[in-house]
Amino acid sequence: MTNSRRTVVILAILFAIASLTHAQSDPLPSWNDGANKRALIDFVTRVTREGGPDFVPAPQRIATFDNDGTLWSEQPIYFQFAFALDRVKALAPHHPEWKTQQPFKAVLDGDMKTLLASGEKGLAEIIMATHTGITTDEFTRTVFDWLITAKHPTRKRFYTELVYQPMLELLAYLRQNGFKTFIVSGGTVEFMRAFAEKVYGIPPEQVVGTSFVTKFQVNASGVPVLMREPKIDFIDDGPGKPVGIQKFIGRRPIMAFGNSDGDQQMLQWTDAGTTARFMGLVRHTDAEREWAYDRDSHIGKLDRALDEALSRKWVVVDMKKDWKVIYPAEK
Amino acid sequence: MTNSRRTVVILAILFAIASLTHAQSDPLPSWNDGANKRALIDFVTRVTREGGPDFVPAPQRIATFDNDGTLWSEQPIYFQFAFALDRVKALAPHHPEWKTQQPFKAVLDGDMKTLLASGEKGLAEIIMATHTGITTDEFTRTVFDWLITAKHPTRKRFYTELVYQPMLELLAYLRQNGFKTFIVSGGTVEFMRAFAEKVYGIPPEQVVGTSFVTKFQVNASGVPVLMREPKIDFIDDGPGKPVGIQKFIGRRPIMAFGNSDGDQQMLQWTDAGTTARFMGLVRHTDAEREWAYDRDSHIGKLDRALDEALSRKWVVVDMKKDWKVIYPAEK
Repeated sequence: MTNSRRTVVILAILFAIASLTHAQSDPLPSWNDGANKRALIDFVTRVTREGGPDFVPAPQRIATFDNDGTLWSEQPIYFQFAFALDRVKALAPHHPEWKTQQPFKAVLDGDMKTLLASGEKGLAEIIMATHTGITTDEFTRTVFDWLITAKHPTRKRFYTELVYQPMLELLAYLRQNGFKTFIVSGGTVEFMRAFAEKVYGIPPEQVVGTSFVTKFQVNASGVPVLMREPKIDFIDDGPGKPVGIQKFIGRRPIMAFGNSDGDQQMLQWTDAGTTARFMGLVRHTDAEREWAYDRDSHIGKLDRALDEALSRKWVVVDMKKDWKVIYPAEK
Repeated sequence: MTNSRRTVVILAILFAIASLTHAQSDPLPSWNDGANKRALIDFVTRVTREGGPDFVPAPQRIATFDNDGTLWSEQPIYFQFAFALDRVKALAPHHPEWKTQQPFKAVLDGDMKTLLASGEKGLAEIIMATHTGITTDEFTRTVFDWLITAKHPTRKRFYTELVYQPMLELLAYLRQNGFKTFIVSGGTVEFMRAFAEKVYGIPPEQVVGTSFVTKFQVNASGVPVLMREPKIDFIDDGPGKPVGIQKFIGRRPIMAFGNSDGDQQMLQWTDAGTTARFMGLVRHTDAEREWAYDRDSHIGKLDRALDEALSRKWVVVDMKKDWKVIYPAEK
């Protein structure tokens, strides 16, 4: 080996070591340095230090994350509701009666005022009409198809591009440290399962959500199918979140992250554990890069949970201050 | 190194290689050689052979197992029912009314005839009285306590010793090959979760079962608890098994194992998949080492599922012929 060649090899090795060291020293590159980033890294370090006072064995390292507003955006309407509205339009040719029947007429006319006036009952009708009455396989296909075509009205990106880069890094960092990461969301489970594995690295069996009753049937061709019935099976929101955690996971998380009052009980349940634990809220403070809303928002209202976070010293992530970038495309 | 010392070292290395080779060549040592053992190994080999026509990526290698009669014994009564009867006796001092009130009186008197005559309604009353009205943490504790003290009436062993050694080997073999193993059982989920991790290596979040409604409450000391309500939430049996699989796992298994008609739809659902797949039934044929029963049994009845297995060429394991040992203690 010539001297110059040797120098190149040595430099390459040094560079590789430096990269490794850097990767080790900053597992959360999109988080600004500060108390919240330190708290995250400190927690993971403590629970994984074998023999340390806060060590938690790997199988018990359960981390649960809300989805809307915690892992991806939720404005101006929940993305799942955008899907439902698009489905109403797609299904309209098969439902001539919708031309005159509310709340469907309002959707087809783009009349948001009348739509909102139809209230929870109207909303439920739209969800049932677009999410049930088909098999589980068919439903998953419609979600897939929508995700690769529909774009956010103002951000002009695919919805799956509007996930939070810093949270993707946190999920990966946790898994690298033996955590099992779960979604525990008020969104419906099969909608999220259609993209959670690809986008978040969270497999279907680790997604907990609101669900519809399904029924096993053998269809006319002799093929077994699961039909989605127009009946809610389980609402995974508010006090339903600890119930969902117990039902689907069967052990208490040691880390939980949310962004709204609907996550308050999940954080309380996590906080009532006996091991080291981490409770976090994402606070939407960035009107420019994302959205800014909390106590008075009709979506993702953060009020009582924020008070409790402040009094119990849960970590409140300030999107504007804590995050270098919001979405992966900004990297 | 002396010659003799060198010989010892070489022999040690050869022995180590031989052990490794043996371990690799027989992942199922408690299974007798034959078509069923070959079918299992052949299936695992095919779905894990990258580039092969039957390759299935690891995340999709979902295997679901019934519990009672498939992973452990279920005679003369379901072990969970033995737990319920013992709980009636333990709780009796707090329920003086049970001395005269059926079906509890029958349990306390050891009067199995009257107990059985109380039918499904009586059985449900016993299950509700012993499984609900307490918090999830308290319930888990009672199951733990019972498992380390109660013994099977005729086998005189702890119930957790009456698991099938050949099935433990199969579970471990699957996991070594990238499968995720799940229980999908008619038994109640939190009963099984109390021992599934230690006994089967299956963590709580991979146990699907029948469940009770639970309710999030903050108790008098300000501590959040989950109360088990005397109301069935979900019955994970028969057509409920594919429903439970979709609900909790969210993808179709490529392997499913059961032992009774209650598993038929789970096997149908698995068989309707599009990748390579394996459907298996454990048939109880060994009156001496375990029990022998099928079409006419009141527990673990295997009739219609057996007919379908024969016509669809599902694998039917013959306990007497296929298994060298039944329980771990016989090894």
